[in-house]
Amino acid sequence: MKKGDKLVTEITARDEDFARWYTDIVKKAELVDYSSVRGCCVLRPYGYAIWEHIQRILDAEFKRLGHENVMMPMFIPESLLQREKDHVEGFAPEVAWVTHGGDEELTERLCVRPTSEVLFCDHYANIIESWRDLPKLYNQWCSVVRWEKSTRPFLRTAEFLWQEGHTMHETAEEAIEETERMLNVYADFAEGQLAMPVLRGEKTDREKFAGAERTYTIEAMMHDGKALQSGTSHYFGDGFARAFNIQFTDRNNQLAYPHQTSWGLSTRIIGGIIMTHGDDSGLVLPPAVAPIQVVILPIAFHRGGVLEKAREVQAQLQAAGLRVKLDDSDASPGWKFAEYEMKGIPLRVEIGPRDLEQGSCIVVPRDSREKLSVPLDRLAEVLPQLLEDYRLRLYARALQNREKNTFTALTMEEILAFAAAGNGFLKTMWCKEAACEEQMKEQAGLTSRCMPLAQEQLGECCPICQKPAKVMVVWGRAY
Amino acid sequence: MKKGDKLVTEITARDEDFARWYTDIVKKAELVDYSSVRGCCVLRPYGYAIWEHIQRILDAEFKRLGHENVMMPMFIPESLLQREKDHVEGFAPEVAWVTHGGDEELTERLCVRPTSEVLFCDHYANIIESWRDLPKLYNQWCSVVRWEKSTRPFLRTAEFLWQEGHTMHETAEEAIEETERMLNVYADFAEGQLAMPVLRGEKTDREKFAGAERTYTIEAMMHDGKALQSGTSHYFGDGFARAFNIQFTDRNNQLAYPHQTSWGLSTRIIGGIIMTHGDDSGLVLPPAVAPIQVVILPIAFHRGGVLEKAREVQAQLQAAGLRVKLDDSDASPGWKFAEYEMKGIPLRVEIGPRDLEQGSCIVVPRDSREKLSVPLDRLAEVLPQLLEDYRLRLYARALQNREKNTFTALTMEEILAFAAAGNGFLKTMWCKEAACEEQMKEQAGLTSRCMPLAQEQLGECCPICQKPAKVMVVWGRAY
Repeated sequence: MKKGDKLVTEITARDEDFARWYTDIVKKAELVDYSSVRGCCVLRPYGYAIWEHIQRILDAEFKRLGHENVMMPMFIPESLLQREKDHVEGFAPEVAWVTHGGDEELTERLCVRPTSEVLFCDHYANIIESWRDLPKLYNQWCSVVRWEKSTRPFLRTAEFLWQEGHTMHETAEEAIEETERMLNVYADFAEGQLAMPVLRGEKTDREKFAGAERTYTIEAMMHDGKALQSGTSHYFGDGFARAFNIQFTDRNNQLAYPHQTSWGLSTRIIGGIIMTHGDDSGLVLPPAVAPIQVVILPIAFHRGGVLEKAREVQAQLQAAGLRVKLDDSDASPGWKFAEYEMKGIPLRVEIGPRDLEQGSCIVVPRDSREKLSVPLDRLAEVLPQLLEDYRLRLYARALQNREKNTFTALTMEEILAFAAAGNGFLKTMWCKEAACEEQMKEQAGLTSRCMPLAQEQLGECCPICQKPAKVMVVWGRAY
Repeated sequence: MKKGDKLVTEITARDEDFARWYTDIVKKAELVDYSSVRGCCVLRPYGYAIWEHIQRILDAEFKRLGHENVMMPMFIPESLLQREKDHVEGFAPEVAWVTHGGDEELTERLCVRPTSEVLFCDHYANIIESWRDLPKLYNQWCSVVRWEKSTRPFLRTAEFLWQEGHTMHETAEEAIEETERMLNVYADFAEGQLAMPVLRGEKTDREKFAGAERTYTIEAMMHDGKALQSGTSHYFGDGFARAFNIQFTDRNNQLAYPHQTSWGLSTRIIGGIIMTHGDDSGLVLPPAVAPIQVVILPIAFHRGGVLEKAREVQAQLQAAGLRVKLDDSDASPGWKFAEYEMKGIPLRVEIGPRDLEQGSCIVVPRDSREKLSVPLDRLAEVLPQLLEDYRLRLYARALQNREKNTFTALTMEEILAFAAAGNGFLKTMWCKEAACEEQMKEQAGLTSRCMPLAQEQLGECCPICQKPAKVMVVWGRAY
């Protein structure tokens, strides 16, 4: 048996069982392995490399906007977690508790951070004294732990990797501006780099982050019509600052509390990439985060010159800044085609003896599978354009899926009809009362995804209670 | 008061109280802050940026050598930790134990990883089947936790950041080669990039890693003559593979156990940089990892053209690939000089009205403080050379310190005289008996730092027991 032959096994069809299709892909594309640790996965080289590209792109953007990276401890003493009331209520039920160090019982329990607001506040209290110390624009890349009951790779795991930005500002206006700015950084990244269209919106009170005054979110629609919350940005006002007694001398020489934000994006987004773009042959990766953008397959390369030419092409493409793999193993072309489709590599380049005679090669985009003949001496110039075309197609296809599965309801009857028919986004007006939101959950099984920043006026009344509507909401079922 | 004026306070002189000098520097140069979490520090932006440069350089080198990054869970179930006997004995006394998830008591305790050999083995057992799957060359960047009793920033903290490479090979020879290769990667990095001369050697059985057959180390000498173990590389044989039942089909179609290595370098090395190069004015950073390599200070810049020229110079130097800060704040030049010396920035460039007239500026290296006049239009060409000269001076000075403080002893009398006189490295022959090593610890307060790869023949006998010597050892007191 040739190496890897075992990998080319069928995966479940996407429309037959989407959940199993997903699980098959994360295993067969070698993104993760299950571990002996409850609810935790191993990120394998191919999966972790996607995260490294996400990190590289976002980190550069955060720094361009003036943010600095730091590292806080991974533990939070129980008394520190309890300092802000809403926050501890939200997180205490799902944290892991360290009670012993070696053989000794600790005098105070420590939780493994589920998020680090309180750690940043504890530090900010030490270093913020004057308005000249503001803003503080900090970020950290780390893992956090939330003791989830049921877990799925990338989407919901007890431990996951993320970045968390935590900033402090002189004024509420400046902090709100930061909250919105970072939401847009996430949205632009998702749409521009990952080819995932997203709704930008605000969470309802029921769905917002524990301790936040406002939570903004980007919501993507997966291929099956379900929603994925893909990044969030929170405005805290001065609530934590008061709880942690963080005060500064303002420009009028008065003591004041700074205004705070936090924002995070996690490895969950990799689940979003899989469920937005993947198909029945496996992964389909957006070029910006694909560990390999181009795979070169020399065909019948025992014949003179093929392998040499393939290596020359690889060097040229790498010099042009592309991430290129050349597979000159003795596996069959059929196996290689299937393997690199499973891995979601955007472009496949086939070079055989006949191509060589004609001075050209065949390029096959992962999504369209169209066979394009490209002159060998123009590859370095053509492939970047083909990658860009491919990215635009991925985006257009995902947008089309979202539009096809987005509906509007003016009455409860229409809402229930939508809920019975399947998944998707449902737009309705809403009175902003928690009772109506609860009723949506109980009667229709829908949760509010967000109140989009781009509001539409669909009517005057809340379709649930008939009282005057205040806002348009998008509802759905979420991962 | 101008921002930061508070920072320019005296630090303890290095030769007066080295430990206090160290603590002053890590605080005043804003590398760390103490946290409310027992034994854990906050890495502040300036300290974390040094680590980011260390990561960038080493990660590129690891990848160049074929290693791939992965991410393992941060928790280890107790039963998994206990699988390899020596390993659990070494680490169990110093791990943090998670016993509860939310309100529920766990059925099995989890420790927070103190190192991840067992997690990698657990994964390798799933994915290694054939010799075609080998070698596996994995690495991860993460934090680990060791419940240390007393802690000091960078040198010994309950949680610290590191990278840990874990590799699996077909043969013992190949694994030993990898162990030595990675030791040399660390040594070349320390000497070439950090300007820290190191001894390359093997640890004695007493000092080797729990579960390892051999441990290699790089040992640096700090300014005070004490040793810092700065990176280690371990060869495990097939001990873990047997404990975890990791078997593969070899080239002869026989089942075999693979041979394993691991190697790690941590944020501790930042403590090494501080204690190797720092002086009574603060940090002295090697250019490769200095977050800012050049600081430009415009002098009397209300005068026409100075600030404009300073900005132009900054842009030119940045385009030449240098990391440059321009400080056009209204703090006094004296404050700025002290501040950027404290921060250890390699080169200071002063541009004033008179310099402008002459088309030149003053460049002051952090270490020599020599004032060099450099034509403005040649800065981008001269500064990289000045940084290189500076790096060579740092290395030469550190090497000189090590040579000055390295001694040889042929008798117990000489050993005790050395031990009474102060710190440093002591070279002696040794019989390889544990009892003699124990006696060195008890009578002289010295531990073996390593058996250098570059051996010298100092005599025939072990100076402790007078029996025939087998190897030369370097002894010292260590951080």
